[in-house]
Amino acid sequence: MEVTRAFDLFNRRAAEITDMHAGICEIPASPFNEAARAEHLCRLFREHNLSDVQTDKVGNAVAMRRGRETHPLIIISAHLDTVFPPGTDFMVRREGEILRAPGVSDDGCGLAALVAIAEAMNECRIETDGSILFVATVGEEGEGNLRGARHLLTESEWARQADAFISLDGPGLERITHRALGSRRWRVRVRGAGGHSWGDFGAANPVHALGRAIARLAAYSAPTNPRTTYNVGRIEGGASVNVIASEAAMDVDLRSEEANELNRLDSFFRRAVAESVEDENRARRAGASKVTVETEMLGDRPSGETSPDSLIVRLAEEATKICGCNRPYLDCASTDSNIAIALRIPAITIGAGGASGNTHTLSEWYDPRSRADGLRRALIIMLGMSGLALQS
Amino acid sequence: MEVTRAFDLFNRRAAEITDMHAGICEIPASPFNEAARAEHLCRLFREHNLSDVQTDKVGNAVAMRRGRETHPLIIISAHLDTVFPPGTDFMVRREGEILRAPGVSDDGCGLAALVAIAEAMNECRIETDGSILFVATVGEEGEGNLRGARHLLTESEWARQADAFISLDGPGLERITHRALGSRRWRVRVRGAGGHSWGDFGAANPVHALGRAIARLAAYSAPTNPRTTYNVGRIEGGASVNVIASEAAMDVDLRSEEANELNRLDSFFRRAVAESVEDENRARRAGASKVTVETEMLGDRPSGETSPDSLIVRLAEEATKICGCNRPYLDCASTDSNIAIALRIPAITIGAGGASGNTHTLSEWYDPRSRADGLRRALIIMLGMSGLALQS
Repeated sequence: MEVTRAFDLFNRRAAEITDMHAGICEIPASPFNEAARAEHLCRLFREHNLSDVQTDKVGNAVAMRRGRETHPLIIISAHLDTVFPPGTDFMVRREGEILRAPGVSDDGCGLAALVAIAEAMNECRIETDGSILFVATVGEEGEGNLRGARHLLTESEWARQADAFISLDGPGLERITHRALGSRRWRVRVRGAGGHSWGDFGAANPVHALGRAIARLAAYSAPTNPRTTYNVGRIEGGASVNVIASEAAMDVDLRSEEANELNRLDSFFRRAVAESVEDENRARRAGASKVTVETEMLGDRPSGETSPDSLIVRLAEEATKICGCNRPYLDCASTDSNIAIALRIPAITIGAGGASGNTHTLSEWYDPRSRADGLRRALIIMLGMSGLALQS
Repeated sequence: MEVTRAFDLFNRRAAEITDMHAGICEIPASPFNEAARAEHLCRLFREHNLSDVQTDKVGNAVAMRRGRETHPLIIISAHLDTVFPPGTDFMVRREGEILRAPGVSDDGCGLAALVAIAEAMNECRIETDGSILFVATVGEEGEGNLRGARHLLTESEWARQADAFISLDGPGLERITHRALGSRRWRVRVRGAGGHSWGDFGAANPVHALGRAIARLAAYSAPTNPRTTYNVGRIEGGASVNVIASEAAMDVDLRSEEANELNRLDSFFRRAVAESVEDENRARRAGASKVTVETEMLGDRPSGETSPDSLIVRLAEEATKICGCNRPYLDCASTDSNIAIALRIPAITIGAGGASGNTHTLSEWYDPRSRADGLRRALIIMLGMSGLALQS
């Protein structure tokens, strides 16, 4: 039977899959610089007879594998971008079975899984009732702000078409991310007239206003369940010790597992900024200059969840057990699935098998020895959702 | 009479004095880079027959004009350094009578006055009872932290020798600075383990600790009399929005006209920093990492005053009136005299005549047309303090 043969192929072709994986990782893909790696994915998709292969408007590599019908349309994806800046050495070093390279796990192994699955389906002539859209997305990390998945699901020709969304992100077998960790990111700039620390004392001071806002935020009592966090990650302002700064800025990260908690934290934060600016202006001396504030949204990732009782989560749990892990772990994270979940598309993010460590550092590594289990699991979930077409 | 001839000389030699002034200003003198200008002052001092001409250990240009006795020993000074960084174009542009150059007023006109007075005393054979030490100091501005005057008065061979100290700083005739504006400057660094904004939330956060300290300081009620000010002039910290910073820093400037008020503000500030770090550590989640704080003193300028009833201030007021300004203005500022005042040496800082504008900017200008009044005033005060020796 063709699925059994595909399972088998993942084992027999392990070395070739790992070579293909390394080949992908060695093509640099820094934030907002994913084009070369996207082109490479398009080539690989074509090799395995996917159709309508293209990079879309924002740079996602998209390819279709038509079933007997268009629907159910299952999207399976992994992300092209890494967290590493241009100029990073992306070359893969082999140490025995281990691969070492920036991004080799996150999300090199997800991209390799996409291609390995397309290859197995092609070689084993697996036919499906519905269709499968293979997508390598741009902009999953950091300031990318999920722009690849966002464009795909809200603006591209496939917007409002998907019946399920599966993201392969990182290694492992136990994890099933069905909850979307929401986040909002702000850059806050406070501006004033500035001046001399002695001569102009009493003017509203942008650095002091910012300090007041940080102190207010630091006093926020964030719940541990649903887990909710905040971070002023970066501050800067002022030219010299004896000069009142004319501008000061901070970058702030707010997160919660739960949409209402995120909204509550976000409201608190924005009120804290407004009140701090008011306090600073109120404290200024008569006739002295005021400060003004500008908040710019750097990122907005929706919270939400795919119900643990939904077909896709149940199927993922069963597939996990079939593939050898008795304790599937339901998780919450910030991934491409956030966008799908916010659109109420049944969506999960799962590991692509194997093991890894030191993610987001230059010493990131990936061990492919249990990769086949992850590929099998992904194939089972995908076929379960799209419907394996019985041979006539 | 020789003093009258000196007064006259300031008028007759106005053009030559201005050329000499421009010559001084065109020799670059950035903070901590005053050596070339100091050498030039030494050459000029030698031309006018001052003795013991040398640059001392920290770079002050020092020259003696012996009277009949060593004491009273009057120090007359101006400062070599400007606020402008290496690479600044210090060339003087003439626009009619006006000179334009960075530092042409602060303190080019003070240095020119030093030399013009030495020249007039030499040419007119003015003899004094006490002796006069001519000093062009280094490090008056900013991070120089008055190191030239400090060394001269506390460590050099002239330490504990001076009976009066007169600093010529900037232009004008009305101002008599007899109060020392004290300041203390701190760099505060908060360090922690850092981490991921989501995964490591609950760790004590250096940026948050700093924000708490700024907010506390911003709530300090500084008196307007004695005028007292504070400024967080610069903040920086953190690499990215979703990373807990491992370090954050601020530079803080505290000032007061009055020593006790400065001490009170300084104590409040240091307590605010300590309490903010404690608060941040107390608020961290169980088992999470702490932050630590390090404070480095960037500057310490003592407050104090020369009594308005002292001989030097009374003499300065009378001299100001004699030279044509009916309203001498008793002032408070941060100048080389701070060090002398803290050592209880009768000290004032006065303008060197003329007019100026745009000080501390690249478009600084100086108008020498009323310079002679300032030179006369300085000569009168100096001779009044050292004792004009009557011709035998």
